[in-house]
Amino acid sequence: MHTIRFFTSGESHGKALTGIIEGVPAGFDLSPEDIDRDLKRRQGGHGRGGRMTIESDRAEIISGVRWGKTLGSPIAVSIENKDWKNWLAGMSVLAEDRGSIPPVTRPRPGHADLAGALKYDMKDMRNILERSSARETAMRVALGAIAKKVLADFGIVIGSYVMQIGNVRAHGEIPADDRALVRLFKEAERSSVRCPDEKTSRAMVRAIDRAVKGKTSLGGAFTVFAAGVPVGLGSHTQWDRKLDGRLAQAIMGIQAIKGISFGDGFAMASLPGHAVMDQIYYAASARSEGKAFYRRTNHAGGIEGGMSNGMPVLLSAVMKPIPTLRKPLMSVDVRTKKEFSAAYERSDTCAVPAAAVVAEAMTALVLADAFIEKFGGDSKKEMKRNFRGYLSYLKSF
Amino acid sequence: MHTIRFFTSGESHGKALTGIIEGVPAGFDLSPEDIDRDLKRRQGGHGRGGRMTIESDRAEIISGVRWGKTLGSPIAVSIENKDWKNWLAGMSVLAEDRGSIPPVTRPRPGHADLAGALKYDMKDMRNILERSSARETAMRVALGAIAKKVLADFGIVIGSYVMQIGNVRAHGEIPADDRALVRLFKEAERSSVRCPDEKTSRAMVRAIDRAVKGKTSLGGAFTVFAAGVPVGLGSHTQWDRKLDGRLAQAIMGIQAIKGISFGDGFAMASLPGHAVMDQIYYAASARSEGKAFYRRTNHAGGIEGGMSNGMPVLLSAVMKPIPTLRKPLMSVDVRTKKEFSAAYERSDTCAVPAAAVVAEAMTALVLADAFIEKFGGDSKKEMKRNFRGYLSYLKSF
Amino acid sequence: MHTIRFFTSGESHGKALTGIIEGVPAGFDLSPEDIDRDLKRRQGGHGRGGRMTIESDRAEIISGVRWGKTLGSPIAVSIENKDWKNWLAGMSVLAEDRGSIPPVTRPRPGHADLAGALKYDMKDMRNILERSSARETAMRVALGAIAKKVLADFGIVIGSYVMQIGNVRAHGEIPADDRALVRLFKEAERSSVRCPDEKTSRAMVRAIDRAVKGKTSLGGAFTVFAAGVPVGLGSHTQWDRKLDGRLAQAIMGIQAIKGISFGDGFAMASLPGHAVMDQIYYAASARSEGKAFYRRTNHAGGIEGGMSNGMPVLLSAVMKPIPTLRKPLMSVDVRTKKEFSAAYERSDTCAVPAAAVVAEAMTALVLADAFIEKFGGDSKKEMKRNFRGYLSYLKSF
Amino acid sequence: MHTIRFFTSGESHGKALTGIIEGVPAGFDLSPEDIDRDLKRRQGGHGRGGRMTIESDRAEIISGVRWGKTLGSPIAVSIENKDWKNWLAGMSVLAEDRGSIPPVTRPRPGHADLAGALKYDMKDMRNILERSSARETAMRVALGAIAKKVLADFGIVIGSYVMQIGNVRAHGEIPADDRALVRLFKEAERSSVRCPDEKTSRAMVRAIDRAVKGKTSLGGAFTVFAAGVPVGLGSHTQWDRKLDGRLAQAIMGIQAIKGISFGDGFAMASLPGHAVMDQIYYAASARSEGKAFYRRTNHAGGIEGGMSNGMPVLLSAVMKPIPTLRKPLMSVDVRTKKEFSAAYERSDTCAVPAAAVVAEAMTALVLADAFIEKFGGDSKKEMKRNFRGYLSYLKSF
Repeated sequence: MHTIRFFTSGESHGKALTGIIEGVPAGFDLSPEDIDRDLKRRQGGHGRGGRMTIESDRAEIISGVRWGKTLGSPIAVSIENKDWKNWLAGMSVLAEDRGSIPPVTRPRPGHADLAGALKYDMKDMRNILERSSARETAMRVALGAIAKKVLADFGIVIGSYVMQIGNVRAHGEIPADDRALVRLFKEAERSSVRCPDEKTSRAMVRAIDRAVKGKTSLGGAFTVFAAGVPVGLGSHTQWDRKLDGRLAQAIMGIQAIKGISFGDGFAMASLPGHAVMDQIYYAASARSEGKAFYRRTNHAGGIEGGMSNGMPVLLSAVMKPIPTLRKPLMSVDVRTKKEFSAAYERSDTCAVPAAAVVAEAMTALVLADAFIEKFGGDSKKEMKRNFRGYLSYLKSF
Repeated sequence: MHTIRFFTSGESHGKALTGIIEGVPAGFDLSPEDIDRDLKRRQGGHGRGGRMTIESDRAEIISGVRWGKTLGSPIAVSIENKDWKNWLAGMSVLAEDRGSIPPVTRPRPGHADLAGALKYDMKDMRNILERSSARETAMRVALGAIAKKVLADFGIVIGSYVMQIGNVRAHGEIPADDRALVRLFKEAERSSVRCPDEKTSRAMVRAIDRAVKGKTSLGGAFTVFAAGVPVGLGSHTQWDRKLDGRLAQAIMGIQAIKGISFGDGFAMASLPGHAVMDQIYYAASARSEGKAFYRRTNHAGGIEGGMSNGMPVLLSAVMKPIPTLRKPLMSVDVRTKKEFSAAYERSDTCAVPAAAVVAEAMTALVLADAFIEKFGGDSKKEMKRNFRGYLSYLKSF
Repeated sequence: MHTIRFFTSGESHGKALTGIIEGVPAGFDLSPEDIDRDLKRRQGGHGRGGRMTIESDRAEIISGVRWGKTLGSPIAVSIENKDWKNWLAGMSVLAEDRGSIPPVTRPRPGHADLAGALKYDMKDMRNILERSSARETAMRVALGAIAKKVLADFGIVIGSYVMQIGNVRAHGEIPADDRALVRLFKEAERSSVRCPDEKTSRAMVRAIDRAVKGKTSLGGAFTVFAAGVPVGLGSHTQWDRKLDGRLAQAIMGIQAIKGISFGDGFAMASLPGHAVMDQIYYAASARSEGKAFYRRTNHAGGIEGGMSNGMPVLLSAVMKPIPTLRKPLMSVDVRTKKEFSAAYERSDTCAVPAAAVVAEAMTALVLADAFIEKFGGDSKKEMKRNFRGYLSYLKSF
Repeated sequence: MHTIRFFTSGESHGKALTGIIEGVPAGFDLSPEDIDRDLKRRQGGHGRGGRMTIESDRAEIISGVRWGKTLGSPIAVSIENKDWKNWLAGMSVLAEDRGSIPPVTRPRPGHADLAGALKYDMKDMRNILERSSARETAMRVALGAIAKKVLADFGIVIGSYVMQIGNVRAHGEIPADDRALVRLFKEAERSSVRCPDEKTSRAMVRAIDRAVKGKTSLGGAFTVFAAGVPVGLGSHTQWDRKLDGRLAQAIMGIQAIKGISFGDGFAMASLPGHAVMDQIYYAASARSEGKAFYRRTNHAGGIEGGMSNGMPVLLSAVMKPIPTLRKPLMSVDVRTKKEFSAAYERSDTCAVPAAAVVAEAMTALVLADAFIEKFGGDSKKEMKRNFRGYLSYLKSF
């Protein structure tokens, strides 16, 4: 059913991350800069540790693009791990380098370490953590940037903002209007924690600074929106065609994400039915030429019956605090079976702003997939023709 | 990647729901009663309307089973719509019955109606609502019951309980222990709202009764658990292999579900890192013969790095209030484009207990898929052999 | 990547075959007769045995169609096994009927029996042969008839003819022209062996009659064509997007098919390069309004680089002689491990004409999938709009 | 359903081919040399042109392997295009290099050029031919070499030999015995046309030399075998699970392949049923310890009912003559629409020996997929344990 398919590969301290996305139609503009912009956004944010300075990620497009345009063929992207030079033997692919660094035998609670070691029969958990690391999300962001380029040509904008870090929560409504969402997003882009509210931003920064001192870490919550999404992506007809389900898989599969919701989300449990329905109106509006169906509210987060309903797609996700932290936790050495208590040294204290950028990417990949599925077409021109035909039809419905 | 695949089909007032599940290995016991038990659980719950009395669902196994055992071939299940006899012409597949009942031209806010009408070019929204209806979930429950039978042979038990209906919320911790979860589940099974706490149950019943009088509807939240899940289902290696992502898609794709989380879920946003990690110990326990890795807490909901970690899988989901309700809402007639305000007559007030049963089914389907993927095998005997080999290996790890 | 997905289910002597096809857009005409026509064609042909008289197959459309039009929702089809009434206990799904008929312990060479018994751990090979039987192809034909209906609306006609039965081979070229192919097909439809050449037809009938007397069976070869296929279905960009590969899987997966080729097929091994290329011309023709690219030959069978090239898609397949036959063959009783020599009683002598109809169905399913993938759209109207846009574009290329 | 998934990417004169294969379990030995060996075999063969000298392909393993062992994570492989340095601007990904070489506006008959240009809306057919080129198969060979390594650990050997080039055909039976097949394969490896029969080899070389002089090209046919395949890979239960269908897709999707068959293949059309069945015996043999079911013939090519039956898997495929040739063919300039007659300069005359190596790779990928599907397991150790359990079970069946 998927029209766009993609894989990432690469270990955190290996030579490079490699990604392939296939199914992107021909004729879309694409430059390395389009990708680098989001790679940079992913690396920013108050509360990041030392590695972010080492790795100033740059995408290299290896194939699938010629003279600045997609060819319709698979696009391979490579992102070098700049730190690799310090790990040449330790992360070598060659058997002769075996044992050049000591094994990791102490699994970190909250990580893939122990489950992965048992599943894949590994006594050296470096063989797990190198892949489970959130470093991998750099490639998701790169491929997501390609999906964003496709969607942008159809007026779809994807953005995010951080709503909560630790105990600090932004208040105020998420607007139901595409343009207001985009405006908010631009404000969030100016904040070092990617929160559109200046005062809350400052409080978040302080909370992070306190966590640094307290040798702990902080999670949080963020919102991703897609503005300009036409009605009718996804489908109600089969469990695995539902747009919300597909987005949920994509977002929940991001490292450290533990929950996702649409629109009013978990608050809907408490509200009576008449308060959470998005009533339907018909009028001319800024958004449409001529009269059209519209809503004034967006409790549903832009999805009803597993389909986009013409309102912005709006989802929230929660990120757990980064499990690596500097307060000792109990664990067990897998070799000696001795329990021990140890601290970990990785320096990120809060990665919520970065996770929101990753979630934008996954949202873009799912929406581009659903978009191409609905409109078909192998070239930008053909997609545009089909898309315009649909918009005209909607007007005359 | 999927080893188990399944489709449902069927309109709400059509002749029957039909489902096919394929990839179920041979040699598992299966009887219609195994399915009917869950079909009945789905139809229960305080707050359901009149149709539940009409439809006392029974599964007919059409193929894939002989003499009470699965054959390894696709299993087709049929569930009659008893109400169909009142809709013979209205829902007929034949062209000659066209127009025998008037079209539905007024989309209900909160439903697939309008988005579906525009996507599929339908002026009669019965053509959408018949499929988007939660009636379809009866078949998911039927197929899920088959998945549960497979899992049960490996000691995996899946259950659920309702945690919130409207403003009424159950308090108290979700236990981290498999057996305690199963006990709690048995208590919930005795409650008409499927809540394990008696006092909260009564409050939920009262809240529903108030909503009936107030002509509104109530949503809520529930928890699904899978006890006895071995470490190592799912994988950290690729975005679409992660067990939490796969469960999230399956659960979010259930009608009216607007959010899903694992373990501590959205509460994790507020907590510092050292408070939410499940520390690792190594000792003999009731659960394992001999010493084994274990945790005392289950903040992660049994999944780390996209893999089951040996603790119970624990997820929560939120259901919005049923959108059909008896207070008037604004909508627009798609034929006349006139705005109108109207109430709807469907009589369910709260379907949270039923939704939890559906979520059990989807959880079972995903876990059975991941289980067969890990252990391979085409017969129960082969799966058992492989599974036992893995358990022995874990002991000697 | 697949836009259309389908499963069949059902044992040969079970209650019914059940199929689900999903992804068929809304608004296409569909009646049970559309399906029954092909079911009947599958049951015909000189050389069929007794069961064909018992089973005069009729399709029942259970869901996905209302008032003669597809709904966009999954279409479930049921075909009763009329013989089931003689197998109520023997093929019962209920455990209590266990043992009501003796097990099949003697695997037939050439069938799935032994491999299936070993794979699925079955000492009673009825548990394998009931599903591996070509009876299952009735449902493929039913679902294929739905795909044909979709394609027909875009001017695509799929047909077949038998080219060889045993030693009797039709001579003469397969035409390179759509209309000539359809004409030939109409002639084949009048032959009891589905061969367009009358004289060869008679020789084939005689060969079958001789085989009946000789207590053996005959295989053969047939050609399937799709006329009116637009340029550009499938893709050269990834191994599993290639149209020829997808067709090859679909055809090779039909019971008893042992080979498939496109265009000149295996004859291409002997010919020099300049003799097998379809040269390209540009002119007005009967097929196009205005000037267009065209070919005068169709050595390639309508597919170049994994894409349809605008010429008719043309494939040939070979069917082995039906393995059940009345001359004794050596086998081994799986229970006693005793070798024995035995004959089998099933009465089909030649099923090549039927297999060609099944191959039409599989061809239709693959092409409909590729068609919807290219043109997108959720309703017939939307697909038509997109399709017409593409045709106009081709003219102005 | 697929346990192993893989994509290739890369243009013929782009920087590099990139491939990702994921789903390979952990703990298998893998070195670049394992891959390079097959890359070299693909580049050999009498009749290859100049580029083969330029491109002495070497695989670089970018990820998924550490210290000579697979990690269970996705394996990315890169193969540099050594010719790229001559195409830096012409094949640049950057917009600023646009127009640095003239467009290809003349489609070559027999290639993807025209169909691709029309599908993807490209007036410069370099944008098509760069991806449709058989250069891409180098990456398939690389990924296939990884699959071979997995299979080799279970005693499965995959090889091929050329049976026909132009009019020259090898005579003599394909043996039904695993060891004899491997022996034959070793002989073929010594031939410059990969034909095991010395005399035929020499005739093939002469035929190629004549074709060079005649300015034409030659196709041919080859056989691929997999020896040591256990009974029970694939399944009879669903159309897309059949092993022969999956192999057919994989092989037919190779550039220039126009037909594929199993066992006796198209010859089966002429033979009576009793002559083509592989009778079943039960005895001790060189292959099994203790008594086991076996066959003396392999008409079926090792697959019955869509499952491996324990005999060697045996398939044949036909390759059309390479369409690029030095005799003029008619075509049409897509820009001017002028018909013209032109010759092409690429120098390969016959690539059948290379195609056979590519087909080995695709066979290995499909079999490894089916193998992992049957035996499950995330590490070599777990797979071995499950596999051995199955072998013991087979003995005691």
